[in-house]
Amino acid sequence: MMLKSISNTSRSVVKGRIVNTLARFSTKCNRLYAPSRSLPTLQSSNPQLSFPCLDKLEERTNQLSSGLNSSSCSNKDDISSLEAGPEPSYAKIQTGFEVYKSSKPIFFDYGGYLPEYEIAYETWGTLNEAKDNLILIHTGLSASSHAKSQPKNTKPGWWENFIGPDKYLDTNKFFIVCTNVLGGCYGSTGPSSKDPANNDYYGTRFPIITVNDMVRAQRELIRDVFDVTKIHASIGASMGGMQSLAYAWEFPDEVEKIVSISGCARSHPYSIALRHTQRQVLMSDPNWNRGFYYEKIVPHIGMKLAREIATVTYRSGPEWEHRFGRNRADDSRPPALCPDFLVETYLDHAGEKFCLEYDANSFLYVLKAMDLFDLSQSTRTKCDSIRAKTERDFYAKSNEKLSQDSKTTVPAKPYKEQINSATVTPEESLKDLHEGMKKITQKQALVIGVESDILFPVWQQREIANAFEEQGSKSSYYELSNDVSNYGHDTFLISFDHIGPPVKEFLLS
Amino acid sequence: MMLKSISNTSRSVVKGRIVNTLARFSTKCNRLYAPSRSLPTLQSSNPQLSFPCLDKLEERTNQLSSGLNSSSCSNKDDISSLEAGPEPSYAKIQTGFEVYKSSKPIFFDYGGYLPEYEIAYETWGTLNEAKDNLILIHTGLSASSHAKSQPKNTKPGWWENFIGPDKYLDTNKFFIVCTNVLGGCYGSTGPSSKDPANNDYYGTRFPIITVNDMVRAQRELIRDVFDVTKIHASIGASMGGMQSLAYAWEFPDEVEKIVSISGCARSHPYSIALRHTQRQVLMSDPNWNRGFYYEKIVPHIGMKLAREIATVTYRSGPEWEHRFGRNRADDSRPPALCPDFLVETYLDHAGEKFCLEYDANSFLYVLKAMDLFDLSQSTRTKCDSIRAKTERDFYAKSNEKLSQDSKTTVPAKPYKEQINSATVTPEESLKDLHEGMKKITQKQALVIGVESDILFPVWQQREIANAFEEQGSKSSYYELSNDVSNYGHDTFLISFDHIGPPVKEFLLS
Repeated sequence: MMLKSISNTSRSVVKGRIVNTLARFSTKCNRLYAPSRSLPTLQSSNPQLSFPCLDKLEERTNQLSSGLNSSSCSNKDDISSLEAGPEPSYAKIQTGFEVYKSSKPIFFDYGGYLPEYEIAYETWGTLNEAKDNLILIHTGLSASSHAKSQPKNTKPGWWENFIGPDKYLDTNKFFIVCTNVLGGCYGSTGPSSKDPANNDYYGTRFPIITVNDMVRAQRELIRDVFDVTKIHASIGASMGGMQSLAYAWEFPDEVEKIVSISGCARSHPYSIALRHTQRQVLMSDPNWNRGFYYEKIVPHIGMKLAREIATVTYRSGPEWEHRFGRNRADDSRPPALCPDFLVETYLDHAGEKFCLEYDANSFLYVLKAMDLFDLSQSTRTKCDSIRAKTERDFYAKSNEKLSQDSKTTVPAKPYKEQINSATVTPEESLKDLHEGMKKITQKQALVIGVESDILFPVWQQREIANAFEEQGSKSSYYELSNDVSNYGHDTFLISFDHIGPPVKEFLLS
Repeated sequence: MMLKSISNTSRSVVKGRIVNTLARFSTKCNRLYAPSRSLPTLQSSNPQLSFPCLDKLEERTNQLSSGLNSSSCSNKDDISSLEAGPEPSYAKIQTGFEVYKSSKPIFFDYGGYLPEYEIAYETWGTLNEAKDNLILIHTGLSASSHAKSQPKNTKPGWWENFIGPDKYLDTNKFFIVCTNVLGGCYGSTGPSSKDPANNDYYGTRFPIITVNDMVRAQRELIRDVFDVTKIHASIGASMGGMQSLAYAWEFPDEVEKIVSISGCARSHPYSIALRHTQRQVLMSDPNWNRGFYYEKIVPHIGMKLAREIATVTYRSGPEWEHRFGRNRADDSRPPALCPDFLVETYLDHAGEKFCLEYDANSFLYVLKAMDLFDLSQSTRTKCDSIRAKTERDFYAKSNEKLSQDSKTTVPAKPYKEQINSATVTPEESLKDLHEGMKKITQKQALVIGVESDILFPVWQQREIANAFEEQGSKSSYYELSNDVSNYGHDTFLISFDHIGPPVKEFLLS
């Protein structure tokens, strides 16, 4: 009888019927106490939809799981075989890099430290006798130090045709260095490394890191390994465009020129929002296990989903109109909730390529570093102060563990939403940024933006350029309009002939 | 010994070291065969990060789980108590609507049918004697029929101040009808309804539905309940903007005027991509259980994440600059991987509000209907043909179940990515659209777009307007620039004084 009361078949025109999710819940709940019934054996009106995309995810979970338990333990190849299709060169897992090791601790902008660390790096060209031709390339979020092929790793790098003899970064003239960022997973110390203090994985015991922290680690490498006191240029795109500014900010006397492509001087709420969704999706994968998935099943589903979201932000709508239009993968088949339109198969593939390629914790920490990037005076002053205190405490306690009082922790309950609660106006905030950037705005800078970029919209590059211009520096600003490139944020990885000429000219000027 | 070989502490400067995820996997795997060891007891260099956002999700899962098994079964209130803060009026669960029931089957654009169905609806104002003053309002994705308060439900509706005596939709002059869409969960038949064929939940045995299917169901209501042969206007925003065109397309002789706000005439790949990520995130929640979570724990985590992604697309960057800036929820606390910046707490709250409010399967099916929306000649011809065949087969077999041959199913393996494989050029595609729209472009239409909308960018509303203009119709196009509204796609729910005047004027002209 209970069942009948919630059956559509028993209803005619019902006025004022209460049908809502909560009521349904209650009703369903009641059903648990209804007499048990046999499962429905009658055929449904329509067939059950199939979910090949979920079948595949489950298959991978099973393969990863059985790999962990296989007697041969040779699951490396098993995992590789799950990957179909070409991989992006800039995301390729790298071999053949050098490693700089610092046995001195490094202290971080928001507290925390690493007792020691390593930085993976690669070089191209030759350092001249005057040691004034070094160009430091900073990478985007997920790239390794392998910007270009070299004898120890002949695979193409992520800027393969941008760097080389007579190319835009001319190795006949310059000595090019590229590192994997601190916090990354391609040879530099990150969350997947082991903490010497307890010989266990850092996982989410890795401290929150900032872009300025990353470049401070790089500088140790530049000084210790190459004995260079002033680099010719600090250059990068995307997160690398943040680092290129940060390096100059931290060491204004040690940088001749700055090139910042598709970057920003501070992260804006829209970009934070886009990265937030990627983090939350990844952290909600049960296999992420709060960062302790090492030796277990990696959160490949969360990584795939996060990368798909990211991929949406890397390109632009107009490009997809031409590439995919409204075409479906197989128009003779019925539509599906799994990938169905061509653009969906593209996103699906981008997620598939990435889900086992990059460490999930590195992904979270580096995304967060991007959110925290801000060259405003107030932020930098605060960070400098926290870092100095951490360092003082560390040495005062003769290398003992730093105290962890309640002020250094996050509250147990999530923060409540606070509407319209920004405490400074956009104008005050901009003034703060200009004040902070005075440390570098006398330098020569080249800023490049791409109109079709939705992740780092051009007004953010204009913001950098305006800060330099206000100080009357010799900075240049180039903007690639939609008719020049509709590759969005990824332009710096694709449109070399549009990005390259101004860079080359600037470096030689 | 094995442990030592992967410890950072044992390394100095290592050249050409291979450090990658796969190698790590292999190493970790080996560790399973190393002698068992006690858990690390040494203190780590830094504290473990805390995850209040994950604690909260787990708490909700436990509460939902215990609610299902509680002896009182009064989990309705328990669930409500999980929700903090105000709910958006347009997403409020509704009571006090009327229900139209059709005992005739409805056949769908991509195959499949419902043997019978119900449509929830509400009305405002009075139908005049000539029966020529009916205005049909179409809703966005997740809205109910409760566009405005009325005696049976006095709570504010999602267009509360847009509708009423002397308001933009003037109930002194017009008889306003709003329905919950077919496929929805606020009173109309959807995946959470029961299939009369087997008295079990449709779940993902619900057929794929299109926007044109939805309006065909609405029209039965208009004819059967109100005996109206021509409605004065078909009006809607967002998905409602699609429906307003679709209704006119399906029944060109039964519509006087069309108003389409922040909609489109066909979904474009960028919008499909944004909806794809929401679907995949939701479907990856293990509690979604391929659509059969009724009487179980609902996929509240997937719903929350999907809604957060959607929320990013509903507003615009400039609005957030003013509202949130770079402010953090508590700047005295260290940064967190859980929501930390104000904009993150906003997204988190938007997800929290929605995660138990809307049926997950309805969400998937309605999102998919939006993807499939396309008034191009080729698409409409194809759909009309599939639908006619389904209907013929149904009656030929005297109401027996429809045959389900292999051509009507999705392949078992996911589709491969197909790069640059669009088979028609954007120009051919646009011609196809104009051809398809000839059925309605002689009608009077008002099209409104909002420059700050990133989900349905203004060029998509211009596309509609151009199609009308090409036929020389008396259509009007209004575009709200960024200095008028920076509320993005949500403008139609907020900026009544900018959207309203042209609508009012058009309806009375």
